[in-house]
Amino acid sequence: MDKIVRINMGAAGGPQVTTEPAGEFAGLGGRATTSMIIGKEVNPLCHALGAENKLVIAPGMLSGTSGAMSGRLSVGCKSPLTGTIKESNAGGQAAQVLGRIGYAAIIIEGKPAGDDLYKIHVSSAGVKVEVDNSLKLLDNYPLIEKLRGQYGDKVAYMSIGSAGERLMHAASIACTDPELRPTRHCGRGGVGAVMGSKRVKAIILDDSGCKQRAPHDPEAYRDANRKFVEGLRKHPVTGEGLPAYGTNVLTNVLNEAGGYPTRNFTSGVFEGGAKISGEAQAELETKRGGSATHGCHRGCVIQCSGIFNDKDGNYVSKQPEYETVWSHGGHCGIDDLDTIAKLDYMDDNIGVDTIEMGVTVGVAMTAGLCEFGDREGAIRLVEEVAKGTPLGRILGSGAGTTGKVFGVEKVPVVKNQALPAYDPRPIQGIGVTYATTPMGADHTAGYAIATNILKVGGDVDPLKPEGQVELSRNLQIATAAIDSTGMCLFIAFAIMDQPETFQALIDMLNAFYGTNLTADGVVALGKQVLSVERDFNQRAGFTKADDRLPRYFYTDPIAPHNQTFSVTDEDLDSVFTW
Amino acid sequence: MDKIVRINMGAAGGPQVTTEPAGEFAGLGGRATTSMIIGKEVNPLCHALGAENKLVIAPGMLSGTSGAMSGRLSVGCKSPLTGTIKESNAGGQAAQVLGRIGYAAIIIEGKPAGDDLYKIHVSSAGVKVEVDNSLKLLDNYPLIEKLRGQYGDKVAYMSIGSAGERLMHAASIACTDPELRPTRHCGRGGVGAVMGSKRVKAIILDDSGCKQRAPHDPEAYRDANRKFVEGLRKHPVTGEGLPAYGTNVLTNVLNEAGGYPTRNFTSGVFEGGAKISGEAQAELETKRGGSATHGCHRGCVIQCSGIFNDKDGNYVSKQPEYETVWSHGGHCGIDDLDTIAKLDYMDDNIGVDTIEMGVTVGVAMTAGLCEFGDREGAIRLVEEVAKGTPLGRILGSGAGTTGKVFGVEKVPVVKNQALPAYDPRPIQGIGVTYATTPMGADHTAGYAIATNILKVGGDVDPLKPEGQVELSRNLQIATAAIDSTGMCLFIAFAIMDQPETFQALIDMLNAFYGTNLTADGVVALGKQVLSVERDFNQRAGFTKADDRLPRYFYTDPIAPHNQTFSVTDEDLDSVFTW
Repeated sequence: MDKIVRINMGAAGGPQVTTEPAGEFAGLGGRATTSMIIGKEVNPLCHALGAENKLVIAPGMLSGTSGAMSGRLSVGCKSPLTGTIKESNAGGQAAQVLGRIGYAAIIIEGKPAGDDLYKIHVSSAGVKVEVDNSLKLLDNYPLIEKLRGQYGDKVAYMSIGSAGERLMHAASIACTDPELRPTRHCGRGGVGAVMGSKRVKAIILDDSGCKQRAPHDPEAYRDANRKFVEGLRKHPVTGEGLPAYGTNVLTNVLNEAGGYPTRNFTSGVFEGGAKISGEAQAELETKRGGSATHGCHRGCVIQCSGIFNDKDGNYVSKQPEYETVWSHGGHCGIDDLDTIAKLDYMDDNIGVDTIEMGVTVGVAMTAGLCEFGDREGAIRLVEEVAKGTPLGRILGSGAGTTGKVFGVEKVPVVKNQALPAYDPRPIQGIGVTYATTPMGADHTAGYAIATNILKVGGDVDPLKPEGQVELSRNLQIATAAIDSTGMCLFIAFAIMDQPETFQALIDMLNAFYGTNLTADGVVALGKQVLSVERDFNQRAGFTKADDRLPRYFYTDPIAPHNQTFSVTDEDLDSVFTW
Repeated sequence: MDKIVRINMGAAGGPQVTTEPAGEFAGLGGRATTSMIIGKEVNPLCHALGAENKLVIAPGMLSGTSGAMSGRLSVGCKSPLTGTIKESNAGGQAAQVLGRIGYAAIIIEGKPAGDDLYKIHVSSAGVKVEVDNSLKLLDNYPLIEKLRGQYGDKVAYMSIGSAGERLMHAASIACTDPELRPTRHCGRGGVGAVMGSKRVKAIILDDSGCKQRAPHDPEAYRDANRKFVEGLRKHPVTGEGLPAYGTNVLTNVLNEAGGYPTRNFTSGVFEGGAKISGEAQAELETKRGGSATHGCHRGCVIQCSGIFNDKDGNYVSKQPEYETVWSHGGHCGIDDLDTIAKLDYMDDNIGVDTIEMGVTVGVAMTAGLCEFGDREGAIRLVEEVAKGTPLGRILGSGAGTTGKVFGVEKVPVVKNQALPAYDPRPIQGIGVTYATTPMGADHTAGYAIATNILKVGGDVDPLKPEGQVELSRNLQIATAAIDSTGMCLFIAFAIMDQPETFQALIDMLNAFYGTNLTADGVVALGKQVLSVERDFNQRAGFTKADDRLPRYFYTDPIAPHNQTFSVTDEDLDSVFTW
């Protein structure tokens, strides 16, 4: 990973490929790489879908090695949804394969003039960009099926569905899982629309003939990796809860905590929660011959993924994640796993973020487009997105635009990005993250649920404002660093609770790179990434006034705790004071 | 005008009316009143369609007097379109009538819970708020027809059409002209949606039994007014051009200057310009028994309005203004006055800003919804707005949202408000105003065309960046003051060129109020208003990054001058340094 490939889609005479040394980005990865390149090279005032924006794709620092859990791929750009800098990462096979091919980053820049559609083939032999208009408006599942006919099964695919081609602001970039299903998405912020604006439909990553990346000290790396895996296996969240029930283990937990946003954030408890819980889902999956335990990429030892079949045992979708089960489920008053799995498949196929899409459907329900709980109505709305009708384009633009177009006052967005599955009134720590992360509302940017609710890494009372800023600050710093390693964020549970597991991660990095990184160095990296991102946003015109939740979270209390969000503006403004 | 009436639409038990002394707002009017009340009472971070926003309606300082040209009514609020503070003013009868009734302002606040629709009756006997659900979804022409049956013809009406009820961000507030036609609109910024969010459909202003407001020194007032009128009559713009051809006199002028934005700002010359010019329009109006010379309110001595009939002599609409002829005409490649007049009528009827609506149709043409020049296609698109279909709701949300939803990169908006009828590349002074006014793109906020093109108030070369900041600064200050007097902005031509006419205006203010205002005092008032507005926007999160034109005005030169906008960011940031 000592080189960067730059693809200028707008070059005169057709796309131009150049390779350059990784230079200042050598030894970095993931979010550090994408945010630093965007911060350095992209005009923060550019149009997100214009020639001046760039799409940066980067494997993590340890992607492509034998290290466990190192399969996250980061995608960065200026976001058309939020107008901020954006890093969105996904599992699947892409990061490992790209790491092995040896690119620290793919930078896609410029914009072609015509309406030809392109595919990009990346291998150790180089990078080829070809027109392939036969792929136009194919959605992800049929698209990958078609590409497999040409490129086979020993590659990884990244792609956009019709939503990305249509430049919808909720559009995602799909990465294939080990079984070549386009189920792992860089979902948030409309990164798929940026890929679509470059007219790039698919990227084929082919590591044939490539080896695993070799550590500086192979033995020390193997040892550290073993300790790291042991730590993950012994922690109750990563060793038991996630493998058995997936992320959806959270439905019952959040519902019991009164922090499960129900029917567009009008209650903190969903009466139908048990029916769509991880426990119910795992039982159903097993009964139908699917799987409740599955890895989204090779080298995963947590295996929080799964396979959801219909009652006849036919594949419907991957196991929907907690966030998806919530957004298409409780948020819309829907308590039926079959409906949710169908919507999950549709989202993956069209290529839209399941959080943004589900929240949008709930906002549309508030606007009266269909009733809360209307399963068929929800499916009809997402079908509009697939068809690209005017209504579908509104919905595909996300919750904020849908709220504006239909005159809905109370729309759960920060920086125009939909809030995820945790109400910030009874769980104030996650509210601090939603409000202040440079990404727009994003739970993964500083997952305060860990400490507020799961009591991992300490215990901060979720109902009170005290301690939330410090909690979110530390989590945001740690996350920015972890997002750079290529490690799945779920390792955080173990490294927050088990000092020896955190040390094992640091040892892995040092053994691989021959460095002397310390815990302080990890913190410094996280701060550096956040600073670059904040600087971009500031230059794009964002101020502390943007680091707020929507007004109604301050004015409308929510049952059962009857609380409003009460972290003061002054405290929010101190999150990045370190 | 020594009292303010406050109507709380959200009071428990139904709307509550209270009256209070004008206090600190006594002696102010128009934009000074609306902006100062909004700045003081409205949380800049509130939702524009929420209970916390307020709609302030204020006649000008001299409205309701015998002074010529004093019939402008200001409406202020936080704008749902721009997110900034907003003042939008209109002619028609409302300001004079409200001034005579004696209210310095009507403040409509709160938000009722149900979906009842209200009308408000204002007279010297007091203010009555009544439910009238029979008015639901009536558009402005049939609405006023129905209200005239109840309240007669000796009142002035303010109202919203279906667009305002549907909370569309392009929605306007209509004021009736002397013939009770709902043709004079507070158009910009979605003020009609704010009225709609309060569930107020119509305001009936009844000055029966009220007298003209009495000046402090009647004789001096009469003298000053006479000199003021003389000045207007002798200036070529207000004494000849505007009465003969209306504002549309500008089409040929701008086309010749190469600053007429054609087909969504892709050329500065429209080959069909002559066919839709003010000269052609006046000839057609006269031939068809309409009128090329008409006043929008009693007391107008310029008479720039007119009546547009169809070929059979039947009323179609008021004479479309230059901005409307442009937005629905050249901007969309349409060179047919009948089509434009029909669209003008539709906009007035639905209750949408003709600038925002026409620009939006042009953006939709860029998106491929119909071809440039397609007359029937343009009408069909606006019919969608009237029907409130999903497509209509997109379009009714304005150019910015339409561009986002359809993935159009080059959308002419500043702070999400559509640019008016002057390209800022060959006319750099107006670009400074578009970029920096607290209102979002707005030509009236600092009409640099006067000096750049018409050579009124001096001569600043439109093609060069030099001198534009000073020009726009001075005009923005003067405009903020004029918008507070209740005077039609068109008086500016005469007062910029003729010192004695400016003095006559100051003399009118002093004779009326018994004050000793000087030219410096007028400037101070303008600066104060702008400062209040800038402060609001800053607290709402706006920064200098928002005081920019869209990127493509800096990167894409336009024919025939092949220029980009070249005023530097540093210069733009100095506009409000005084």
